[in-house]
Amino acid sequence: MRLVRLGPAGSETPGALVDDDTYIDLSDVVHDFDEAFFGSGALETLAVTVAERLSAGRGEPVGDRRFGAPIARPHQILCIGLNYRDHAAETDQAVPTEPILFTKSPNTLIGPDDDVLIPKNSVKTDWEVELGVVVGSHASYLEDETAAEAAIAGYVLVNDVSEREWQIERNGQWSKGKSAPTFNPAGPWLVTKDEIEDVLALEMTLDIDGERRQTGSTSTMVFSPAFIVHYLSQFMALEPGDLINTGTPPGVGMGKKPPVYLKGGETMTLNITRLGTQTQRVVAHPAAQSGTAEA
Amino acid sequence: MRLVRLGPAGSETPGALVDDDTYIDLSDVVHDFDEAFFGSGALETLAVTVAERLSAGRGEPVGDRRFGAPIARPHQILCIGLNYRDHAAETDQAVPTEPILFTKSPNTLIGPDDDVLIPKNSVKTDWEVELGVVVGSHASYLEDETAAEAAIAGYVLVNDVSEREWQIERNGQWSKGKSAPTFNPAGPWLVTKDEIEDVLALEMTLDIDGERRQTGSTSTMVFSPAFIVHYLSQFMALEPGDLINTGTPPGVGMGKKPPVYLKGGETMTLNITRLGTQTQRVVAHPAAQSGTAEA
Repeated sequence: MRLVRLGPAGSETPGALVDDDTYIDLSDVVHDFDEAFFGSGALETLAVTVAERLSAGRGEPVGDRRFGAPIARPHQILCIGLNYRDHAAETDQAVPTEPILFTKSPNTLIGPDDDVLIPKNSVKTDWEVELGVVVGSHASYLEDETAAEAAIAGYVLVNDVSEREWQIERNGQWSKGKSAPTFNPAGPWLVTKDEIEDVLALEMTLDIDGERRQTGSTSTMVFSPAFIVHYLSQFMALEPGDLINTGTPPGVGMGKKPPVYLKGGETMTLNITRLGTQTQRVVAHPAAQSGTAEA
Repeated sequence: MRLVRLGPAGSETPGALVDDDTYIDLSDVVHDFDEAFFGSGALETLAVTVAERLSAGRGEPVGDRRFGAPIARPHQILCIGLNYRDHAAETDQAVPTEPILFTKSPNTLIGPDDDVLIPKNSVKTDWEVELGVVVGSHASYLEDETAAEAAIAGYVLVNDVSEREWQIERNGQWSKGKSAPTFNPAGPWLVTKDEIEDVLALEMTLDIDGERRQTGSTSTMVFSPAFIVHYLSQFMALEPGDLINTGTPPGVGMGKKPPVYLKGGETMTLNITRLGTQTQRVVAHPAAQSGTAEA
């Protein structure tokens, strides 16, 4: 099943895609794809509702409706650093012996095709195509990776936008460079895990203005989604609907020699097998320009 | 005004203390002290409601009601590291030139007198008495510290419980050692900022089993609450109800020679001028003992 949230930012309604152009509205049976929804177990029977409505002729055209992030703002956005061997190499860092955890502010979440804003005073805004894992149930001290697999609701394409100066050169702790407004496009849809045969065999790409910058595969991940969910549950309690960005393959701007960062005006296009395509315009934050309006 | 949330965990109701033993129930006019409440601006007129109800004889005894955290689970819990000059010195770290930011999972928030659980496999669980700042409005790119001061709703006593091995020795990024369940006792009340004459003149203490471990004063903070709120708003958007733990004075277990950590069975007692007293029992997490039940 592919879950979507369609409509204007802030008033999206939940539904399910039945093909790329057709969806089933679920707003009368689901308040939102949020912590309460995933925690209720309602996802398990939702496919039945979708199938019934499809055969009753209730499919509707997506048309030009905006895709929002396919989940509501989560309790937390967790991120795993340096989780692709060749990305660690390109940034001159060692492959980690256990997952590196950092966080993003939950209010960074935006739709897959919304504008990404370069923050005021940013000098090194960068891109990162990533596999996002959506947690399906409260998860604390999971016993093993099988239990972790059961605690996963599905997968989503994300762009883990990053400000490298703020992340690395402004007194440690990466969260500072990961949390600016619009820094977490997600979607267009959440694919439930039953539809992903092998989550470690997904191709991923990111283009800037049509030029290929990142090419990768989840087959080169250091730690798998199930490993990560089991691991994190030993340090904290995960909540239903939590989003985990699982790291990026090679090709980020920081890894170029010399480094290349976003300036505004670019178009970013991201894709992961089965998880769809994102297209974002890069725009300087309005506040970033207020000081130069009369210059 | 002192805002409280009284009642069993998970079903606290909002109110305001009028003296240490008497409160005014506000559950009919306030859903909760959450993002929607602080964002609505309703805090500004709440004192009028409280005063009217007090003179109408509607004060009720607190009795043995449990104090919950005085705010609902926030959008995010942000923390400032090494923000007291002498605490930086005791842990052999430099005084930061700009605020160090890290985060805690929001679901770490518990009441001021709830049990603190030592996590499974923890070896270095430590304490940190701190001044917590509650954000009062959406705050992005604040112009200056005056605007930051206006964006603060009030202050709260917190214990920023920390697992030092997980924070420091498990692949960088402090959040990993800050987010275990029960790691953020807060309360007993939120004091609105109008009742704190000088937030940089508050005494703070933490005792373990009656023995004084931390003695400090907000007068030795490196970065003030207004500085921090202005600073953070340049990197992310703060939301109403967000909690910012502003760092701890000397006396943490990690700073002892040799270091001293919690084992379970201790009682922690924390106090900050005007912000009240917390008393927590330290208990090994039930999951931590499952492997040793038959040993």
